[in-house]
Amino acid sequence: MATNDCVFCKIAAGEIPAVTVLQDDHCVAFMDSGPLADGHVLLIPRVHAETLDGLTPQQAASMLRHLPALVAAVKAVTGCDGVNVLQNNGRVAHQVVMHVHFHIIPRRAGDEFHFNWPAKQYPPGRAAELAEAIRRNLP
Amino acid sequence: MATNDCVFCKIAAGEIPAVTVLQDDHCVAFMDSGPLADGHVLLIPRVHAETLDGLTPQQAASMLRHLPALVAAVKAVTGCDGVNVLQNNGRVAHQVVMHVHFHIIPRRAGDEFHFNWPAKQYPPGRAAELAEAIRRNLP
Repeated sequence: MATNDCVFCKIAAGEIPAVTVLQDDHCVAFMDSGPLADGHVLLIPRVHAETLDGLTPQQAASMLRHLPALVAAVKAVTGCDGVNVLQNNGRVAHQVVMHVHFHIIPRRAGDEFHFNWPAKQYPPGRAAELAEAIRRNLP
Repeated sequence: MATNDCVFCKIAAGEIPAVTVLQDDHCVAFMDSGPLADGHVLLIPRVHAETLDGLTPQQAASMLRHLPALVAAVKAVTGCDGVNVLQNNGRVAHQVVMHVHFHIIPRRAGDEFHFNWPAKQYPPGRAAELAEAIRRNLP
């Protein structure tokens, strides 16, 4: 499943060093080496998938069950005011390493990580139409 | 566990209408009524927790096992180029409704949702120091 040139597969295999905070049979969590803030952690599955839709439900669950404790620990250690959990799929979505990873990003008032929120409104019927199509595309 | 004035508890209970795409004993996924893009979906646990660290590992897993299929379905229906999965904890992190929710946000080149990435470097030893403290704060 691993690709030979995948940095995160190599970290999971111990072939590239990383500062780990958690490891089990399914996943590894380690310090992002280019952090947005002190305490920025990455959580990755050991199995190689480029994007989240490449994981099975069980693979996702086995990894993501650790998110609450990781968020709690990062909060406790950094004393941050909030946390963003962010997972990017595709270059357009800001993904750089093409192996699924969840960012756990400590936030403080006045910090340098920003995003906007350009919320729209659906025209009548559009949300229901999209939802029906999404339901048809679910297992 | 529910708070009387929580909009997402009311959606989970069927007391406020929402355009749902998935429901089971543990979670509900529905169309965000103020979408960042067509097909923007929210995934919430039925149990009330303000932030992610308020969930148990099993509660997180039961909900988040659906993320891969939701991302795949949103991609298939919208034909988007990428997807951000984003979960905000705390006002400073852009959380508005104080009930855990994961955003599934379709992305396209040139769309209006933007975030920056002000990555830093740790001074020598700092990442290891933080990691040790995080490990001590994990269960």
